[in-house]
Amino acid sequence: MSATPRRLRLGMVGGGAGAFIGAVHRMAARLDDEWELVAAALSSDPARAAASASELRIAPERAYARYAEMAVAEAQLNRQGGPGIDAVAIVTPNHLHAPVAHAFLDAGIDVICDKPLALTLAEGQALQAKAYARGRLFVVTYTYSGYPMVRRARQLVRQGELGALRLIQVEYAQDWLSTALEGSGHKQALWRTDPALAGAAGCLGDIGTHAYQLACFVSGLQARAVSADVATLVAGRALDDQVQATLRFDAGVRGSLWACQAAAGEVNGLRMRIYGEHASLSWEQQRPEALRLRRAGGDDTELLRGRTEHGATETIRVPAGHPEGFIEAFAQIYRDTALAIRSRRAGTSAMAAAPDLTTVADGVSGLAFVEAALRSAADEGRWTALPVGRP
Amino acid sequence: MSATPRRLRLGMVGGGAGAFIGAVHRMAARLDDEWELVAAALSSDPARAAASASELRIAPERAYARYAEMAVAEAQLNRQGGPGIDAVAIVTPNHLHAPVAHAFLDAGIDVICDKPLALTLAEGQALQAKAYARGRLFVVTYTYSGYPMVRRARQLVRQGELGALRLIQVEYAQDWLSTALEGSGHKQALWRTDPALAGAAGCLGDIGTHAYQLACFVSGLQARAVSADVATLVAGRALDDQVQATLRFDAGVRGSLWACQAAAGEVNGLRMRIYGEHASLSWEQQRPEALRLRRAGGDDTELLRGRTEHGATETIRVPAGHPEGFIEAFAQIYRDTALAIRSRRAGTSAMAAAPDLTTVADGVSGLAFVEAALRSAADEGRWTALPVGRP
Amino acid sequence: MSATPRRLRLGMVGGGAGAFIGAVHRMAARLDDEWELVAAALSSDPARAAASASELRIAPERAYARYAEMAVAEAQLNRQGGPGIDAVAIVTPNHLHAPVAHAFLDAGIDVICDKPLALTLAEGQALQAKAYARGRLFVVTYTYSGYPMVRRARQLVRQGELGALRLIQVEYAQDWLSTALEGSGHKQALWRTDPALAGAAGCLGDIGTHAYQLACFVSGLQARAVSADVATLVAGRALDDQVQATLRFDAGVRGSLWACQAAAGEVNGLRMRIYGEHASLSWEQQRPEALRLRRAGGDDTELLRGRTEHGATETIRVPAGHPEGFIEAFAQIYRDTALAIRSRRAGTSAMAAAPDLTTVADGVSGLAFVEAALRSAADEGRWTALPVGRP
Amino acid sequence: MSATPRRLRLGMVGGGAGAFIGAVHRMAARLDDEWELVAAALSSDPARAAASASELRIAPERAYARYAEMAVAEAQLNRQGGPGIDAVAIVTPNHLHAPVAHAFLDAGIDVICDKPLALTLAEGQALQAKAYARGRLFVVTYTYSGYPMVRRARQLVRQGELGALRLIQVEYAQDWLSTALEGSGHKQALWRTDPALAGAAGCLGDIGTHAYQLACFVSGLQARAVSADVATLVAGRALDDQVQATLRFDAGVRGSLWACQAAAGEVNGLRMRIYGEHASLSWEQQRPEALRLRRAGGDDTELLRGRTEHGATETIRVPAGHPEGFIEAFAQIYRDTALAIRSRRAGTSAMAAAPDLTTVADGVSGLAFVEAALRSAADEGRWTALPVGRP
Repeated sequence: MSATPRRLRLGMVGGGAGAFIGAVHRMAARLDDEWELVAAALSSDPARAAASASELRIAPERAYARYAEMAVAEAQLNRQGGPGIDAVAIVTPNHLHAPVAHAFLDAGIDVICDKPLALTLAEGQALQAKAYARGRLFVVTYTYSGYPMVRRARQLVRQGELGALRLIQVEYAQDWLSTALEGSGHKQALWRTDPALAGAAGCLGDIGTHAYQLACFVSGLQARAVSADVATLVAGRALDDQVQATLRFDAGVRGSLWACQAAAGEVNGLRMRIYGEHASLSWEQQRPEALRLRRAGGDDTELLRGRTEHGATETIRVPAGHPEGFIEAFAQIYRDTALAIRSRRAGTSAMAAAPDLTTVADGVSGLAFVEAALRSAADEGRWTALPVGRP
Repeated sequence: MSATPRRLRLGMVGGGAGAFIGAVHRMAARLDDEWELVAAALSSDPARAAASASELRIAPERAYARYAEMAVAEAQLNRQGGPGIDAVAIVTPNHLHAPVAHAFLDAGIDVICDKPLALTLAEGQALQAKAYARGRLFVVTYTYSGYPMVRRARQLVRQGELGALRLIQVEYAQDWLSTALEGSGHKQALWRTDPALAGAAGCLGDIGTHAYQLACFVSGLQARAVSADVATLVAGRALDDQVQATLRFDAGVRGSLWACQAAAGEVNGLRMRIYGEHASLSWEQQRPEALRLRRAGGDDTELLRGRTEHGATETIRVPAGHPEGFIEAFAQIYRDTALAIRSRRAGTSAMAAAPDLTTVADGVSGLAFVEAALRSAADEGRWTALPVGRP
Repeated sequence: MSATPRRLRLGMVGGGAGAFIGAVHRMAARLDDEWELVAAALSSDPARAAASASELRIAPERAYARYAEMAVAEAQLNRQGGPGIDAVAIVTPNHLHAPVAHAFLDAGIDVICDKPLALTLAEGQALQAKAYARGRLFVVTYTYSGYPMVRRARQLVRQGELGALRLIQVEYAQDWLSTALEGSGHKQALWRTDPALAGAAGCLGDIGTHAYQLACFVSGLQARAVSADVATLVAGRALDDQVQATLRFDAGVRGSLWACQAAAGEVNGLRMRIYGEHASLSWEQQRPEALRLRRAGGDDTELLRGRTEHGATETIRVPAGHPEGFIEAFAQIYRDTALAIRSRRAGTSAMAAAPDLTTVADGVSGLAFVEAALRSAADEGRWTALPVGRP
Repeated sequence: MSATPRRLRLGMVGGGAGAFIGAVHRMAARLDDEWELVAAALSSDPARAAASASELRIAPERAYARYAEMAVAEAQLNRQGGPGIDAVAIVTPNHLHAPVAHAFLDAGIDVICDKPLALTLAEGQALQAKAYARGRLFVVTYTYSGYPMVRRARQLVRQGELGALRLIQVEYAQDWLSTALEGSGHKQALWRTDPALAGAAGCLGDIGTHAYQLACFVSGLQARAVSADVATLVAGRALDDQVQATLRFDAGVRGSLWACQAAAGEVNGLRMRIYGEHASLSWEQQRPEALRLRRAGGDDTELLRGRTEHGATETIRVPAGHPEGFIEAFAQIYRDTALAIRSRRAGTSAMAAAPDLTTVADGVSGLAFVEAALRSAADEGRWTALPVGRP
C-alpha cells in the first residue's frame, strides 16, 4: 500500500443551483475520491454565486462572481504554493465555454470543459492552439467514452476482432423537445434552441456531436465527407432538431448518423453499431453494461462488463452484474484526468497514462463535423469534405 | 356454418426442387386450405420440370416445360369451364417476372408475383397498365405486410394514434453476402449479384425495396425525393450490397433507409420505426409478434398479437403467446388473394375485401424508388424526385 | 429426385367448428404436405358433425357422428385395401382421450392424441400396454418438443455441453383464467375446470405437464420425487390454478416447476432453464427461435435457429431470421409421425426414424407426475416418489 | 436556498484494502456528499489498519486497530462536543456484525450494518432489542431496496395497482461458486462457505435473504410458513449453495424463492415478479431502471426511472435514460440514513423521513426466514412456521 496523494483541487465555472450538468460533474468528481471542489464562479449574479457556493460548502473567499477574477486569483494562489485549483470544470451554457477556457488557459490552469468545446470551429481551433502552446491539459467531457463497454468496443476494433471495418451506424434520439418547450420558458430548452447561446447548430451540436464522437472513438477513424439533411420538425424552433447524415470515413468505410430531439418515445437513445468483415459490435447507452458481438454467419455473444478479462482502461468499481451507469462513466473521465495530471507532474506523459481520455482535439473534430454538416445541408446534401488528418 | 367453397387452383412458374421461395409460396398457399397446386412450369428443362412436378404430386399432363404453353393451355381449360388455374404464382429469378406475368395477363389469369415486379420501372408500369386494362388481380408478395403487427401499426397510424407523422426509419440488413459467395458458385448469390438476372440494383432491389415498401405501407405515404449513397463493400461484386438513403415523404415527413447484405452478424434484420408528434412505433421482423408503442415523455407499451382487440385485417390462427412467423405472414397474402378473387366473383370489390393486399402498384412504387436512388447516387447524392402521386 | 409417396390419410375425432386445438392439428398436418384429412367424427351431434365435415370438405360418407363407428368403418376400408385412414388425431376434451384411443387401437389404427393422454395414471398405463401389445404408434402431441431450439437444447445436453447437470427450472404461466371465466359459460374454461371432464388436476394437468415434459425432454431425466403446493387462487374454482413443485431428478439433479393460469400479465409463458457444471441453457416459448447458452464465469451466446449447423432433427423450412412458431413446431410432430409410419412400413424402426417424437410413454410419465404432485400436496408437501424407470 | 448542514461523520469497521463491500459503502456514502469518512478500524492487524487508514486519508489518531476502542473513543469525542462520528458502518465478515454492533450501540452511536445482521435469529433479536432500548438508528443495508424502481414497485403495490396480491416469485442466482473456489484460497469464498464465519446458512443467508427481503419489501407482507429444499451442489462444500423454497405469505398469498451460487452463467441474477388480481410487476437487478407492469388480458407497459412522475422516495440524480446502478442504489440508503439522523435531531421522526429505509427489523425478519428454511429442509420439506407479526 503506497501513500495516497492528496485529492486534486477542482474549481468550477457555471453549475449553480438547479443546473443539471454541474451537479453531474460534481458527483463524478466525488465518486472516486480523487477530487475536492474548493472554488467556484457558479453564477454571474454575485448573490446567487455566493448562495450556491454556500450550498456546496465552498469557502466564501473562494466563491467568485466573475470567472476572470477567479482565474487570476487561483493562479495567484498556485504561484504562491498555496492551495489553488488543479483544474477548472467549465459547465456554463455553450457560448461561454470558449471565453472561460481562454481565461483559465491564460492563467496556466488545466481545463475540463463540457461539450461542445466552442460555438465555431475557428474558436475551437484557437483554444486547441492555446492549450498546446501553453502545455495545458484540456479535457472535453464526452461522457459516453467513459463507459467501460465503449472502451472495450474500441479495444476490440483496434485488436482486429471485426476485421477491416465496413460500416458505422450511430444515432442519438430524444423526445424532450418534441413540443415547443422553449416557448414555455423551460430554461434548458431556452438556451439550447437559441443560436446566440448554443451556436449555429441545435440538436446537431447538442447530441449529434456525441454520436459522431462515439463513432470516431470506437472506430479510430475520422469522417472525410458528409452529406446531411438538417431539419426543424417543431414549428417555430430557431435551430435544428433533426439531422440525418451519411458519412464517408477513412479507407472507404461507410457510415450514417441520426440525431433528433423530437422523436416521441426516445428517452436518451444513443446507439452504435460497427460492422467489419468478420463481425460487428452493437451498444446502447440505455443498457450500457452489455456489448453485443455478432459474427458473420455465426452466433451472437453478449459481453458483460467485468465478466471476462480484457484490459481496457476502465476502472473496476463493482463486479459484473452490479450495474454501473452514467455517473460512473462520467467519473471515469475525472479519474483519467486526475491520472493524467499526476502523471505529468511525475514527469511521464499525461496522455499515455490515460489514452482514452477525450480532449480538445475531439472537441475540434466535433466542430468540424458540425460545420461540414451544416454546409452540406445548406447545399442540398452535397458531399462536403471535412479537414484531412486529426485536427 | 355456410358451405365451404372449393379450394382455388394455383399454378406456379419457377420454384423447382431446391428453390427457396417457391417452397415458401407453396406452404403459404397450403396453410389456410384455400388453395391447391394443380399445374406448374417448374423449370425450363423439360426433364427437371417433369421430375419436380412429380415430386409435388402435380398431374403429368399439367406439368409444363414452358410457361407460355402453360398460360395458353390453362386459359383454354378455363374457357371450357374445366379445371384451369385461378391464379399463377411467379417465383422465377427476377428477369423472368415480367415476361411470365405478361403471358398470364394475356391469358386472362390473375397473377401472384414475387418481388421485384420487374427489372425496370418502365417494365413495371407496362405490367401495371396491362393488369388494369385486363381487369386482372396482380398481387406482389411483399411478405412483411402480411405480419399482423405490421398491419396493426398501419392501422394505428391511420387512426392518428401517433399524431402527425414526423419521421420514418427503416432498415434491412443481412450478412449472407459478407463474402464473395457468388465466386463459389452459390446459386442464390449468383443470380442476385448478376445485373442480367437481377437488374441494375443488387441489395437495393432485393431487400431495400422491402424496407421501402414497409415504410410506405405503414405510413400511408410515398417518398417524394431521395438522396442516396449506394456502394459495393465486397470487392469484385458486380452490384451494390450497401445503400444508405435519406428520404423526404409527403407533408415534410423525413426518413432514412439502410439496406445492406454484407453486415456481419445481421441475419434478416428488417426493422421499422415511425415517429409522430405524440408517439412512435417500432417493430422488428425477427420478433414479429410485438409492436412497441412509445409515447413522448411517457412510458412504453408492448402490444402483442392477439392480446387485445384491434380490428386489423389479419387472420386469427392461434392465440396470443403462440408465436406466428414468416410462413404465416406469407399465408396471409395468399388468404387475402383468395378473398379478393372470391369477392370479385361474387360481384363485390376485390380490394375492398382485402384492403391490405399488396399489388402491382406497390411493385411500381418500389421500382420508382430504386431508379431514383440509383440516379441520386450516380449524381453525388443529389436530391432526386420520385413521381408524384401513387403510381 | 425420388418419387414422392402419397399423402398419408388422417382421420380426426373432435375438433368441430370453433374448436381451437382441432384447427391447429389440421394446419400442422397440412403445412408439410404429408397428410390429408379424409374422415372425421367432429361432433357427437350428427347434424353438427355433418356440417363441420362439410366445412372441412370431408366426403359425407366419411363424416361420422360416432367415433366407435368410424374406427370400425375405417379399419374395414383398410382391410379391403381401400383408402382407410393411416392414423387418427384425437382432439376431444380430456375425458374422451382414453375411450377414443382404445377404439382406434382396437381397430389397429395408429393414434395421434392431444395431451393429456388420459384422466388417470392407470388409464394411461392401460393405453400404453395396449399400444405396445398391438404394435401401434401412439403419439402424444407435446407441441413444445417440436420447436427446433428445444431439440437443439436436448442435443447440447446429451453432447455434454453443459457438463453434469445440476438444476432444471421450468415454468408455465398464463392469465386467461385470472377471473372465474367458467362462471360466464366460456367453453374452454368450462371443461378445463370441471373435474369430470378434465380429471383431478386443473392447471397442473393442463399446462404443468407441458412444463414437466419439457424438463424431461431436454434433460433426458425423469423426476424421482416431488414436493408440491397446489392451490386454487380464484375463488369458487373446482380445480387448481396454481402449482409450485420442487423436484428431485435422477443423479441428484434438483428442479422446480411452477404452473399458473391466474398469473396476470402472463400470456403463454412457458420457460426453461437448465444448469450444468460448466454452462446453462435458457429458452422461452414466446421467443422460440433463440436459445441462450451461458457459460460459468464467461459470456452469453445466443444461438439462433438455422444460423449454425447442428444436426438436431428439426425440419428446415425457412432460413434463419425468418421466424417459425407454434404451428411449425406442431407440424414437426406431424412430420415426424409420417416419417415414423413410413419407416415402419418400409421395415425399419419407427422411433429410430423420429427419435424426438413424443409418445404414450411421455404421456404416462406426465400422469405419474400429476398423481405424485397431488398426493404430495394433499400430504402437506411431503416428498413423494414417482415410479422408477421410464414408464 | 437554505444553508447546507455539515456533512455527517462516518466511522467504519472492517473494509480494509482489497475488501469489496467496504469500498462500495465508501463510494455510496460519498456520492451525495452527505457523509465524510473520518474514523475507522479497518483491520484487527494494527499495521494493516494504519496503512489502510492512510490510504483512505483518515487522520492517524482516528485510525483504530480495535473496534471496541474506537467505539469508546468516538463516543468520548461526541460527549465532549468534539467531532466524533455520527454513525458507524459495519462491513466486517458476518460473524463480527453482532459484537461490533453491540459495542457501538453501547456507545450510543447509530449503526449502519451490512447484511446479514447476525449469525442467528437470537443474536439478531438481541441487537434489535438493544437498538430499540437505546433509541439508536440501526440500518441494515439491503441494497436492492435502494433502487428507484424497486421503490416504485412497492408504491404501486401499496396503491392497489395490482389488486389483491396472489403470488410472489423471487430468485437470486450467481455462478461465482460454481466450482470449489474456497479450495483455492479465494478470500471471499473462504469465509462465505465457512460455518464459523458465515453462520449455519451459506447461499441461503448470503443472497437468499436479499431475495426474501425484496419479496417482503415490495409486497408489504411477511412469510408465515416455508417448505424448503436446501442443497450443496458442489462436492466438498461445507454450506449450502442451492435453495428452493415454497412460501405462504399473509392472506393466502403464495410464493417461491430460489437462491443458488452454483448456477452456471448467472452473474448477479436477482429477479422479482409479483402477481395480483389485475396486474403483475417484474423487475431484474441487472436491468434496474425498468419495471414491467403487465395487465391481465392486456398489454405490457415498461416503466422507466424518471420518465413519469410517481412520488416514490428515490433521489433524482440524473434524468431518465441516463442509467443509474448499484452504487446509486446503495447511496440511496446512505442518503436516507442521513435524512433520518437529521430528522431525529430536528425533533421529527427518523423513519417517517425515510420510510423505505431498511433496518434491524428487516434483518431479524431475514434471520427468521433462514432459520425456518433450514428447519424445514432438515425435516424433509415440512411446512415450517415463521414468527407471526413483523419481528
